[in-house]
Amino acid sequence: MRVAGMNWMQMEARVRADDRCVLPIGSVEQHAYLSLATDMTLAERVALEAAGPLDVPVFPVLPYGLASGFTAFPGTVSLRLSTYLSVVSDILDSLYRTGFRRILIVNGHGGNTPVTAQISEWLNGHEGARVRFHDWWRAPKTWAKVIEIDPAASHASWMENFPWTRLEGVTLPEEAKSRIDFDLLAQGGAADKRALLGDGNYHGLYQRPDVEMEALWAVAVEETRALLTHGWL
Amino acid sequence: MRVAGMNWMQMEARVRADDRCVLPIGSVEQHAYLSLATDMTLAERVALEAAGPLDVPVFPVLPYGLASGFTAFPGTVSLRLSTYLSVVSDILDSLYRTGFRRILIVNGHGGNTPVTAQISEWLNGHEGARVRFHDWWRAPKTWAKVIEIDPAASHASWMENFPWTRLEGVTLPEEAKSRIDFDLLAQGGAADKRALLGDGNYHGLYQRPDVEMEALWAVAVEETRALLTHGWL
Amino acid sequence: MRVAGMNWMQMEARVRADDRCVLPIGSVEQHAYLSLATDMTLAERVALEAAGPLDVPVFPVLPYGLASGFTAFPGTVSLRLSTYLSVVSDILDSLYRTGFRRILIVNGHGGNTPVTAQISEWLNGHEGARVRFHDWWRAPKTWAKVIEIDPAASHASWMENFPWTRLEGVTLPEEAKSRIDFDLLAQGGAADKRALLGDGNYHGLYQRPDVEMEALWAVAVEETRALLTHGWL
Amino acid sequence: MRVAGMNWMQMEARVRADDRCVLPIGSVEQHAYLSLATDMTLAERVALEAAGPLDVPVFPVLPYGLASGFTAFPGTVSLRLSTYLSVVSDILDSLYRTGFRRILIVNGHGGNTPVTAQISEWLNGHEGARVRFHDWWRAPKTWAKVIEIDPAASHASWMENFPWTRLEGVTLPEEAKSRIDFDLLAQGGAADKRALLGDGNYHGLYQRPDVEMEALWAVAVEETRALLTHGWL
Amino acid sequence: MRVAGMNWMQMEARVRADDRCVLPIGSVEQHAYLSLATDMTLAERVALEAAGPLDVPVFPVLPYGLASGFTAFPGTVSLRLSTYLSVVSDILDSLYRTGFRRILIVNGHGGNTPVTAQISEWLNGHEGARVRFHDWWRAPKTWAKVIEIDPAASHASWMENFPWTRLEGVTLPEEAKSRIDFDLLAQGGAADKRALLGDGNYHGLYQRPDVEMEALWAVAVEETRALLTHGWL
Amino acid sequence: MRVAGMNWMQMEARVRADDRCVLPIGSVEQHAYLSLATDMTLAERVALEAAGPLDVPVFPVLPYGLASGFTAFPGTVSLRLSTYLSVVSDILDSLYRTGFRRILIVNGHGGNTPVTAQISEWLNGHEGARVRFHDWWRAPKTWAKVIEIDPAASHASWMENFPWTRLEGVTLPEEAKSRIDFDLLAQGGAADKRALLGDGNYHGLYQRPDVEMEALWAVAVEETRALLTHGWL
Repeated sequence: MRVAGMNWMQMEARVRADDRCVLPIGSVEQHAYLSLATDMTLAERVALEAAGPLDVPVFPVLPYGLASGFTAFPGTVSLRLSTYLSVVSDILDSLYRTGFRRILIVNGHGGNTPVTAQISEWLNGHEGARVRFHDWWRAPKTWAKVIEIDPAASHASWMENFPWTRLEGVTLPEEAKSRIDFDLLAQGGAADKRALLGDGNYHGLYQRPDVEMEALWAVAVEETRALLTHGWL
Repeated sequence: MRVAGMNWMQMEARVRADDRCVLPIGSVEQHAYLSLATDMTLAERVALEAAGPLDVPVFPVLPYGLASGFTAFPGTVSLRLSTYLSVVSDILDSLYRTGFRRILIVNGHGGNTPVTAQISEWLNGHEGARVRFHDWWRAPKTWAKVIEIDPAASHASWMENFPWTRLEGVTLPEEAKSRIDFDLLAQGGAADKRALLGDGNYHGLYQRPDVEMEALWAVAVEETRALLTHGWL
Repeated sequence: MRVAGMNWMQMEARVRADDRCVLPIGSVEQHAYLSLATDMTLAERVALEAAGPLDVPVFPVLPYGLASGFTAFPGTVSLRLSTYLSVVSDILDSLYRTGFRRILIVNGHGGNTPVTAQISEWLNGHEGARVRFHDWWRAPKTWAKVIEIDPAASHASWMENFPWTRLEGVTLPEEAKSRIDFDLLAQGGAADKRALLGDGNYHGLYQRPDVEMEALWAVAVEETRALLTHGWL
Repeated sequence: MRVAGMNWMQMEARVRADDRCVLPIGSVEQHAYLSLATDMTLAERVALEAAGPLDVPVFPVLPYGLASGFTAFPGTVSLRLSTYLSVVSDILDSLYRTGFRRILIVNGHGGNTPVTAQISEWLNGHEGARVRFHDWWRAPKTWAKVIEIDPAASHASWMENFPWTRLEGVTLPEEAKSRIDFDLLAQGGAADKRALLGDGNYHGLYQRPDVEMEALWAVAVEETRALLTHGWL
Repeated sequence: MRVAGMNWMQMEARVRADDRCVLPIGSVEQHAYLSLATDMTLAERVALEAAGPLDVPVFPVLPYGLASGFTAFPGTVSLRLSTYLSVVSDILDSLYRTGFRRILIVNGHGGNTPVTAQISEWLNGHEGARVRFHDWWRAPKTWAKVIEIDPAASHASWMENFPWTRLEGVTLPEEAKSRIDFDLLAQGGAADKRALLGDGNYHGLYQRPDVEMEALWAVAVEETRALLTHGWL
Repeated sequence: MRVAGMNWMQMEARVRADDRCVLPIGSVEQHAYLSLATDMTLAERVALEAAGPLDVPVFPVLPYGLASGFTAFPGTVSLRLSTYLSVVSDILDSLYRTGFRRILIVNGHGGNTPVTAQISEWLNGHEGARVRFHDWWRAPKTWAKVIEIDPAASHASWMENFPWTRLEGVTLPEEAKSRIDFDLLAQGGAADKRALLGDGNYHGLYQRPDVEMEALWAVAVEETRALLTHGWL
């Protein structure tokens, strides 16, 4: 259930009945031939489809995240880590104040993961709160499905190429990108990284059949939903 | 043009040809009977409609803003001012790094206005940059249109009740809300403010005919577009 | 009553009897031909004259404020917004710790207004506190008096030219300054702003007869005093 | 020369001719029977008298400083250290931007001394700048004069009791305060400190003859002036 | 080569000849029956043994890191993430200023990993710098060796039990700890985590024969040294 | 007792029985011909020898401190003051959380002293805590011993030249360094300071007989130990 579809009276009633909510977080950054908004789009969409049948409120996706490694690619927006920690803490404060105690963060971007250290601090100061941080695309079942389809999969490759992230009129390379050297990639600044990355895909084909993508998506939605319904501390 | 509809190569080409872009900023906060996402929805929508015919890229709306006055209303998300300054500066840094030099910020929430002081600082350190900060609903022509329709207009009143911010199945009061005492409202904390505000509307009717709303919207879109095409320093 | 005229034992007795105090805040910045300290001088003076008959303590004026727009004018001192938020919060903490619960901030500089967003946050965390933020020169009655005298009035024009802000031996232009384009002014950095502003007056004559200034001042003092005696939440 | 007595054009001319200026910094805090504003008053006054004959501009005193040790005494205002570092850096930035390269900080409060570590950092980033930090009351010659008059001297004792810091109608103890245990004082929080400090005087008589005070003041003014005229790097 | 064994003249000569250095970073935190300083001890020791034959300077280990998850265990010291980012950036600034351009960070604590996002930002602003962040115990070859010895291995288990981290006179459990539920562990605050963790070992035996430990250590030293000699960007 | 020699269970038992602990803090910075780690080495060593017979836990030395004045000397590591305040506060928070209430900070570097202002703030917020900040080398008895041996003593002179800070194979000047002009030293940036300081010794001989050093050390250890056993508030 989109928070955009609720007013505050409805929210007040909802949180009294059920203390779960979802916060999707993404990034606006290079995704090779795909949409610059790939990560925010996928995080919000998987969250909405997962939470929908449960009537759990899904807050608007935080579109911007940690993308300092891609700042040499035009259109990438990167928050400083110190900023990001504050943003996520402030949002969690607001959700807690509203009354939520079980918060699922659906993350669409691997680069955002360091914020988990901030969440750990935040939990120490908020009695009764539980937060699950879910990297939807590399959660166990979803990642197993990715590997089953094609183990050559990565940032900006086929595994992020869904009907809702690909762009009309953009022709994709037909051959798989060979694997980036991750060790080299981490050593230098944004200009070095752009030089190493070329179009931005890390590894693998650029597109696979939609029937495979739909199957992958179904697993991801299911796995995300299960985090709302099972396994809370 | 949505940034979500572009990849980084397209962005690189675009910014070489035209150094204008738009950043909408909103808030998720109580809007009485209307959507909690009213401000982010309106800011992004007016930005997209204004920029669309010009092919100027519109970045994803920053959904969360400064709403400390409404934190006693469930569903309100408020960033601390210190956080918000950092977020907006970081985004501007990213737009500048991409190559944009004329940036229109379309703001959907009066409470965000203090960030203009940060933008003033930011401009001092970014050679050649120009930023226009546009409170779309109280820009001269739009506000004149509001007054022409009904001068009893405010936060969460009819003037924010568009087909895309009202909620299905919610019945609205038929009488106008009498004017809140703004001086009292500013003096105390969030709980005091909630007590003063009741349902959250500041002043005026809750709804007016859609034909009036469409006329108002048309003025707002036109006025916003004109800021992209005219009057840059 | 100046705080400088009290010791801590007197302050302790005073705050037990009356929980009101005043904090004037100003700016040191270009004021065309007038004193660089115009804003701090006027804020402190109006505060002292207003509070004097009531024996309400007036803390020393915070001389420095937000003046990033004027940093290309020599003698201007500007605090970063992030700094200013901390300063004002820390001072409020100290006043609250002393026991004050009704705090009137008398502001002498329009550029300081963004700090109201910080005060709103601060109020959320300080039970029982009330803060009124008073832009003395544009409060309703004072501004009405300005307009009555001469509607062409602005920063560094006649309306700030009092015997206690004008400088000996400085000859003033006799003609009114034509209106600055505020939209252009906001778009660029400090150097752009200096180029647009010339001598720094925004609009209007540089001086008017002292009899008018005294009348204006009397309204301002009266209006400021009324905020101490009436209308607290 | 008070900066309050100058406009920006005069400042621009002055700094071209002479790159020296003075910034007095004080504190508003308990001073036993003396004015809460003792430190700001003395710092600004000694600065003005020292700089006056040299026509060196003296900026308005920064009234508030580091006084966390006295927060249990009503009327004390204390900035957090992190805040204070920012304030002083921002002011130095502004003086440097105006063109000053030799800056004398006249400090009136021992508790402010930690800011010297920030000034050291600031100097590393500002080519050609020189800053002298002057604790006026314990500079070599002034302190020698204090000791000559009466070595039992300290915070809030006779040595700060000048005609411009004592309060009308306040009767002072006639006997000297015995020495506070500084080691104990440093160990605990503000409430512990208040318990140890009693009236707030650290050590010594509360008042001495004005002829002695005038002699002390003359030494202080002279020593401060010499820092403007001699010994710059 | 320990930096403690050098003076600044030797450092100046060294960095002119070779721009590589090592910074070990650790944590002081619960390690079940092992030393609270396990992570700092191992990080510094592996760094010194790896760099020794190459005469590459090893800076003193930064003992304290990110351990918010263990704050309910006495003796754990945890820096806030925002603090830690600043510390690591400041140290990197100092190493860069000295002239180092190839910096190997040898990390002894998984919880410190989020600082890599800060390092990525730091690299964007430091021309020519390369930083490698090395989690020594889970680097490919070392981890393979761990798995070869006993795949039930984790924080505070046998794999951190070296002669230089175990404590005299402490008797260890003989049976393996069963696996902690990592998903539950991440959801709550420090008290919840302590309740889940018991003695603090995550998984596996508490001790294994020293001949195995020595073999593991040899792999780790060798793998760490190779990062200094091979594979720089 | 080294904290490195304890596990968390032992720490839990210890703090229940005795609420005293020691935190040594140092600096890595130029010490002329002596070890770059002189300050951290001496602070930790004097702490360990003082606390040893009392079984009071000594946490690992914080090696890095405030050394902005020496950043032009290679090998110097300097934390920004704002960073350092956070680090020390975070460590104190951790010690307090563990249960310590009487904390002795043994400081090895004069430049770190500004952190005492932060400790004062920290004490205000931590009920029952006592912190003593001990500059071991200039505590009354130790400094008296220094002066007794040779009053020409300072940073990087003989008084820091112990068997555990001098370097093998480094030849020392035989003549005493003449006194640095401290007033000039403070005025400029790091490059100015390096030019004034030459080899980095501030004043005095570079070495004195070990029998004298041992006598000095014995006084320092004794005086440090007495702070643990006597004089707590």
